[in-house]
This record gives sequence, structure tokens and C-alpha cells, in this order.
Amino acid sequence: MTETQVISIDGMGGDDGAQMVIAGIELFAKSHLDTRFLVFGDESVLSPLLDATEFAKTRTEIRHTEKSVSMEAKPAQAVRQGKGTSMWGAIEAVKKGEASAIVSAGNTGALMAMAKLILRTMDGIHRPALCASWPTSEGFSAVLDLGADITADAEQLAEFAIMGDAFAKAVHHKENPSVALLNIGSEDMKGNDTLRYAASLLSGSEMTLNYTGFVEGNDISFGKADVIVTDGFTGNVALKTAEGAVKLVVQLLKDSLNSSTMSKIGAMLAMPALNMLKKKVDPREANGAVFLGLKGIVVKSHGGTDAFGFEKAIRVAADMGSCHFAEFIEPSLAQLKKVVEENEKNNLSATKAAE
Amino acid sequence: MTETQVISIDGMGGDDGAQMVIAGIELFAKSHLDTRFLVFGDESVLSPLLDATEFAKTRTEIRHTEKSVSMEAKPAQAVRQGKGTSMWGAIEAVKKGEASAIVSAGNTGALMAMAKLILRTMDGIHRPALCASWPTSEGFSAVLDLGADITADAEQLAEFAIMGDAFAKAVHHKENPSVALLNIGSEDMKGNDTLRYAASLLSGSEMTLNYTGFVEGNDISFGKADVIVTDGFTGNVALKTAEGAVKLVVQLLKDSLNSSTMSKIGAMLAMPALNMLKKKVDPREANGAVFLGLKGIVVKSHGGTDAFGFEKAIRVAADMGSCHFAEFIEPSLAQLKKVVEENEKNNLSATKAAE
Repeated sequence: MTETQVISIDGMGGDDGAQMVIAGIELFAKSHLDTRFLVFGDESVLSPLLDATEFAKTRTEIRHTEKSVSMEAKPAQAVRQGKGTSMWGAIEAVKKGEASAIVSAGNTGALMAMAKLILRTMDGIHRPALCASWPTSEGFSAVLDLGADITADAEQLAEFAIMGDAFAKAVHHKENPSVALLNIGSEDMKGNDTLRYAASLLSGSEMTLNYTGFVEGNDISFGKADVIVTDGFTGNVALKTAEGAVKLVVQLLKDSLNSSTMSKIGAMLAMPALNMLKKKVDPREANGAVFLGLKGIVVKSHGGTDAFGFEKAIRVAADMGSCHFAEFIEPSLAQLKKVVEENEKNNLSATKAAE
Repeated sequence: MTETQVISIDGMGGDDGAQMVIAGIELFAKSHLDTRFLVFGDESVLSPLLDATEFAKTRTEIRHTEKSVSMEAKPAQAVRQGKGTSMWGAIEAVKKGEASAIVSAGNTGALMAMAKLILRTMDGIHRPALCASWPTSEGFSAVLDLGADITADAEQLAEFAIMGDAFAKAVHHKENPSVALLNIGSEDMKGNDTLRYAASLLSGSEMTLNYTGFVEGNDISFGKADVIVTDGFTGNVALKTAEGAVKLVVQLLKDSLNSSTMSKIGAMLAMPALNMLKKKVDPREANGAVFLGLKGIVVKSHGGTDAFGFEKAIRVAADMGSCHFAEFIEPSLAQLKKVVEENEKNNLSATKAAE
């Protein structure tokens, strides 16, 4: 991208709030001289932090808001009382066309509800989905939906596949990402009707998407597909379960290396190697989930991240914000529409023939 | 248990077949002098292997079968051609009362289909579920359903909870296991109607089960509940996804420790500590999934395990086979039935009142 991009940021979101946010912007600003920032929040808190930066201060505009959304607020309540908060303002900047994407480390439920209300769902998309980067042996895969909704029908899964494909291209810089549906077996007949129908839609002769079939849970971490599509309940459980299991293994590794003097010396000698592993399992590296399918790019950063992690989330926002998402997915959505219509026509004639 | 227990075993199942099976029996026989074995399979293969053992040979009877089920057979096909196979014979021994449990490392789908046909579902249970041990920071938790079926309604989830409770008592020797439903949030209002209704059933005042609420995916590996209940699709995805993620981390650890001479020396010094970790993430330790809810105990061992892992599966079979499962869960099933009936009565009167 050569044009200047503007990213809108909720300055008050996250466990460490403004301090972490401004430090993250500074990190990003340092290596991206063509990006400007609109930061929403309490000016008396944000201004002194921004003044202390070297790169961010000349390219950041603070928009004062009186309120912010608490991390504990229920989504419905947050939306009702949302106007005038830093989150609301940051999202509205995208709606107004002032920014190409918005990043918040705040309350996830509130962000999704507010973004849906303000930005509205895209034409051709039935429901938005939460998409994030999953660390694999091959780099990263895109996984969605991670919990925007708890169910998805076949057509929605196919739309998720199209949006995930765009994410993998824009954020992971993959040319022709392979796309798979998450199932409990890789054979064609496995799973439920919804999955089988979604597979038939994605295999439609009109579709140019690189759909490769079903994958199982253990395939995700080994990068068997660049895009993994599932419903929000399954995706959320899969992500959190894997995170928990990895966290336990890392904790057990630490405990065992601390268990004797000899193992401590061993760990010291192996430190550079162990740091490689640490970087690979560092959740900050994969920070930045995108709420895909709205008329505007909304990026959710982990609430508990630090400046390093927040910078990654801004990076995702910049990549997605400059990829012209809507135009990007338009051809695939048109293909999907054709496949769906043809299927419906065939079913109709099959029904008529049976009558 | 003081009485002699008989375990029935499919001698031909698993990637390494008879050799691994007999070696596993020998390991178990060595430390359990009160157990006898019925092993089904090709006598010409099994006899020489058994003759070479020290402990197993005096307490094992070989029952010759001409056929065995291939690891690739489709369940329906395996059932149709099942009579006369080692798997069929081993299951039938439980049906006939000759053995208290059966263990097979063979084809999972075939084992479940055949066991269901031969043993039939227990009274008071709508559908069987696959339950296994999940390694946690606290030891092990029981997780079910891991894929016996792809859906489960609220009453079935409640039945799974009751069966999982019995498994945790018998296999993990827990006195009053905590039981939780897997969800995408721990708040009462999260998830779908099925989960909320299952929660209300398990919270019924008649229930003596130690139901503690919802848990999320990341809670599983930290042992937040002793029994984790979910439908077979979600459970299968969660288990396989966690296995894949842990496998990747362990592989990355090995790679990084092998990356330089210094790290190799470090790893050597830390070897005893690293072996502790290895033991903890060793899938053989958790081997032995039980297909719960049939009129007989059916244990599935990993196909790719070795003698050490197969011995763990026999251990699970012995624990479950001696726990008098049916009588064990009867009181809880009766309580559940009351709660369901009362709910239906209340709904009926609510409907009538509304008319």
C-alpha cells in the first residue's frame, strides 16, 4: 500500500488499557511510516502517554470520550449505554469512512454487538464470523468461526470459507489458500447433513475457491489446510481446548526444568533453543482476531496482551483494512450464490419429478 | 476385588496385532494375579506368543477364530461379516457372561457397531457414549462423548454425566467427582438451549451428582472438573485438536533442543526432568476409552499403542468390569427420570395455564 492508511483505535480497552495501547501503536508506527491513527478515549490519560512517544505522536489524533466500556459489561447493556464510549467512537470512525479498520482490546461481546449495530452486516453475508490466526508447523492457518455465533448452516459455513480465504490472503500473504471444513473424520460421508451440504456447495463447479475437503482436529496444528471452517461453538471449544492443553505442557516443561540443579543448568545451556519454542507458542504472535462480514474491518485484540501483542493486532487491521475486503470476496460470493440457486432448482425439479 | 475377574480380549486388533496384545496381557498379568483372560484370534499366531510368556500363559485361554476385522473396514460391512471374527467372539464372551469386560485395539467404528448390536443399550440409557481419560494438571479427568454419536439432546447429556461420574469413580478412584458441561462460556446464560436444559436437569433438587456448572475448553487441561460432558462431535474435535496442538509443541521442543550442540548438552543434563514431562504427555498413560451405556463393558485401546499402552487399557477394563456399572448408575438414573418427569409436568401445566 502506498496511500496513507488510517486505523481507528479504542484507547481504553484491555486489562492494561491506555498505556498498553499507546505503546503498541508506537511499536507499529515505528515500522509503518504511512499509517495514521485515531485514538478514542480519555484525553487526560492518553495525551501524556502519547507525548512521551517518538513515532506515534506526530501521526496520532486523540478524540476525547467521557466513557469507556467495562470488561465485565454484558453486550446488550454495553450497546444500550454505548454512545460516548471510546469503543463506540472508534467503531463509528470506520462507519464514517475516517478509518479503514478499528482495533480494540476491550470487552469481546460488547465489541461484537456494538460493531454489528453500527456497521451492519455486509451484503451477501448472512452472519459475521470471528477469524483468527492459529500457529501451525507450517506458520499460521486461519480458523473461523471462533464464537461470533453458536450455530451455522451450510450456506453460512460456505460464506465463512470465502471470508477466511480472503483473511489468509491478506494477513498470511498466501496466494491460493487451501480451505477445509472441520469434521470428525476426513471421509466424505462423515459428520452431519450441514457439513455434507456445505462440502457440496464448496465443491460446486462454479467455485474457484481452493476447497480441499474435511480435516480433523489434529490436522489443524499441522497446517493441513490454510483455512479451517467450522461453526462458532465448535471453533471456540477447539481454540480454547488447544490453548489450555498447550499452556499445561509449557507449564509442565517449566516445572520439570526447575526441578533440579542439573536440569536448571541444562535449561540454561539450551536457553536459545527454548526461546525459539517460546516464540512459537507465544500467543502474542497470533494476536488479532477479525470480526469478518461487517461493512468495515473490526479487529479484537486479546484483553490481556501487551504492547508487542497489540502491535500484531494493529498489523492485522492494517493488512485487512488495505485489502479491499468487500471487492475481494465479491466474485466468490457470486459463485456461491449460483451454486446455491442451482441446487435449489435441482431440488425443486427433483421434488416435482417425484410428485 | 477379591473374586477372580475374566477379561475378554480381541487378540488380532491394533496395528501390531497379536504380539502387542499378548505382551500387554503379560504386563497386566504380572501385577494382577486374580485376573484371567479369554483371547480370541488365530491360534497358530497366538499360541507361540503366549507360550513365551511367564505370567499370562497359565491364566489365558485362547479361543480360535478364523477371521479378524481389518482396520479399514466400514462399520456396517464389519458388522455384516462380523460373525467368526476375533472381535465378535470377544464381545460375545461378555454377552454370555464369560467375561466382565472386553478390550480391543481394533477398528473403532466396527467395535462400536458390533458391540451395540451384540450387547444392546442399557435400560435407562438412550445412547452409548465414548469416554476416556484426559491428562490434566491434577491427574486425569473423564471426558465424554468423544464421538460415539454426533449429536446429543439434554437428557442424553445428563445420562452421559451420570456415566462419566461412574467412570471417574471406578477408573480414577475419585470419591465425589465434580461434573461439568462443556460450553463456550461459564456464565449460566451461555450456549444453546440443549446445554441450558441439560444444566437445569443436572441441577435438579433430586440429583445427588456433584454437578458444578459450565466449563470452557481451556478449563479441561487444568482439571477444573473431574468429568467433562459434551456431545460426540464437539468432544471428538476437542480431543483431537488438543492432541494435535500438544504433538506440535513436543515436536518443536525436540527440534529446538536438537538445533545446536549447546542445546543438545543442555537437553542431556535436563534429561531426567524432560522424561517427567514425557511421561505426563505420553498418550499411552491415558489409553483405554470405554464405550459406556451398553449391557457390558467395552474398552477401546488405541490401535497404534504398544504393550505398555495396552496394559493401561486392560486396567481400565478391569476397573470398570469390577465396578458393577449398571447398579452403580441406577440411583442417579432414577433421580434423573424424576427430574425429567417433573419438568415435563410443569411444562404441561404451564402450557395449559397459557391456553
